[in-house]
Amino acid sequence: MNKNNLSFSTWISNNIKNINDNLEKILQNHQDAKLSVLQEAMKYSTLSDGKRIRALLVHASFLAAHGCLMEKDDVLLSIDKAAIAIELIHSYSLIHDDLPVMDNDCMRRGKPSNHIVFGEAIAILAGDSLQSLAFELITCIPISYEIRINLIKNLAESAGYLGMAGGQAIDLTNMGNNISYEELKNMHSMKTGAIIACSIKFGYILAGANQVVKCILDEFAYHLGIIFQIVDDILDVTSDDKQLGKTAGKDSKYNKPTYVSMFGVMKSRKMLEKLRDKAINIIKPLGLSNNRLLEMLDLIIYRNY
Amino acid sequence: MNKNNLSFSTWISNNIKNINDNLEKILQNHQDAKLSVLQEAMKYSTLSDGKRIRALLVHASFLAAHGCLMEKDDVLLSIDKAAIAIELIHSYSLIHDDLPVMDNDCMRRGKPSNHIVFGEAIAILAGDSLQSLAFELITCIPISYEIRINLIKNLAESAGYLGMAGGQAIDLTNMGNNISYEELKNMHSMKTGAIIACSIKFGYILAGANQVVKCILDEFAYHLGIIFQIVDDILDVTSDDKQLGKTAGKDSKYNKPTYVSMFGVMKSRKMLEKLRDKAINIIKPLGLSNNRLLEMLDLIIYRNY
Repeated sequence: MNKNNLSFSTWISNNIKNINDNLEKILQNHQDAKLSVLQEAMKYSTLSDGKRIRALLVHASFLAAHGCLMEKDDVLLSIDKAAIAIELIHSYSLIHDDLPVMDNDCMRRGKPSNHIVFGEAIAILAGDSLQSLAFELITCIPISYEIRINLIKNLAESAGYLGMAGGQAIDLTNMGNNISYEELKNMHSMKTGAIIACSIKFGYILAGANQVVKCILDEFAYHLGIIFQIVDDILDVTSDDKQLGKTAGKDSKYNKPTYVSMFGVMKSRKMLEKLRDKAINIIKPLGLSNNRLLEMLDLIIYRNY
Repeated sequence: MNKNNLSFSTWISNNIKNINDNLEKILQNHQDAKLSVLQEAMKYSTLSDGKRIRALLVHASFLAAHGCLMEKDDVLLSIDKAAIAIELIHSYSLIHDDLPVMDNDCMRRGKPSNHIVFGEAIAILAGDSLQSLAFELITCIPISYEIRINLIKNLAESAGYLGMAGGQAIDLTNMGNNISYEELKNMHSMKTGAIIACSIKFGYILAGANQVVKCILDEFAYHLGIIFQIVDDILDVTSDDKQLGKTAGKDSKYNKPTYVSMFGVMKSRKMLEKLRDKAINIIKPLGLSNNRLLEMLDLIIYRNY
């Protein structure tokens, strides 16, 4: 049976198992008694029960860009490592975002946040180390040096001040402020969208996609980033701590501008539907049947945590 | 006049000006009003009055490895960018180390620490962004992709949990504990030594050094790292805040194991002399006359801040 013909749920669970195994392997490297606390902190957050959406997007984008897997082990290894690098960056960002001086959340992925368990100093260092490890990991991907540099450049830009970290800074500055819809979209395209877009880029870079496919997938990724954030904002008001695995209702508590605070839940849901149609239209030229990215789109929209 | 025949002090001041100009240029890129606070925070610490020892070591190591500059602009550009990447990592580490939950220092380089001016959240994000920027910068070095990957791999390893960040974690865990001399040396070889060793590696990688030269310079770098730390420990007890540009006497206040707490100032100075002789012997095969690394060794030993 062709792996691509697997049901979506089997594809997801196979991939999540693979992603978790690979994360565990990379974080078990160089175990050192002196470093046990730091290494435990890095593992605690990274190996916890994450949705692995970003890593899955790398795989899905690779397939949507008609990347050919077949028996090429090196390609498969490359996708695995690239996907894990993204998860390491995501894990670092969650640890730092949860700190008391940032979003101050004491729960994450259904467990006490990193700094609650290991203290703030080790939490900061665990985040710092996960960021370094992500870049180190990409240097070892069994693919041309040029492609490795391309991946690192994209990830560094997406994680840095013009991407994720910059978005988080704007988010903190915006607390309690009235901002425009454009400002809200821009902030989220950096804070959440940049790494999601990078995941899609990773997939098509590894697939060796042509310029047209890249443009289609970049456009799709931009919309997917907005969709992801709107769902996040809706879940923050419609879900509870247990379902989310983190503190619900935090956006309004901190008076954060969100899609829900700006448009309400009903209108945000309507926006979601429109954006879903748009995203599907964008990706249509790549084929809609058996398209893992399309399935990922619905997974992101209809998730409940 | 051959640039290598410049007096050491002229070489230093020319290079520091060049390093500062390049840091300014890279941090002025993509100025964005929305990001002004974060960008100011990144500039505030990085463009402050640093000694630039790590960046200078990249240049000095390149020359000691008989790297040839001549008119090859790209080589010069490559050294500049590589040296600046190291300074960005160093700057990020200082910002995070100074945080209240870490070493809690409210002064750095003669000015209030980053978190005192910008708040802890922005300070953390500025450090995070500087780390990403360092790797992004190396991806743009005008040298082969293979060498860029080699630089990134070395920097990521040196900055991460088996290097600088790991050393800082061990340092925090050690506070108030009795540790052995071996443990002290190991901790410092990670916390301070790893990035110093990486600076030397950057120089010889860019010079295309052979295996023998690499071994000599690695061995020299290991000793230089220890020397750097002993001087730091001595200055902490013999200098004042104004001279150091940061809070003096902090090691004993926090009951940190240091060379001075273990051996006292006099014996630490004697160790320094012996290590200096050893370092000179190690590097002798590369030639002692007009050797910038040797001059850097004495600059590091005889500095007063």
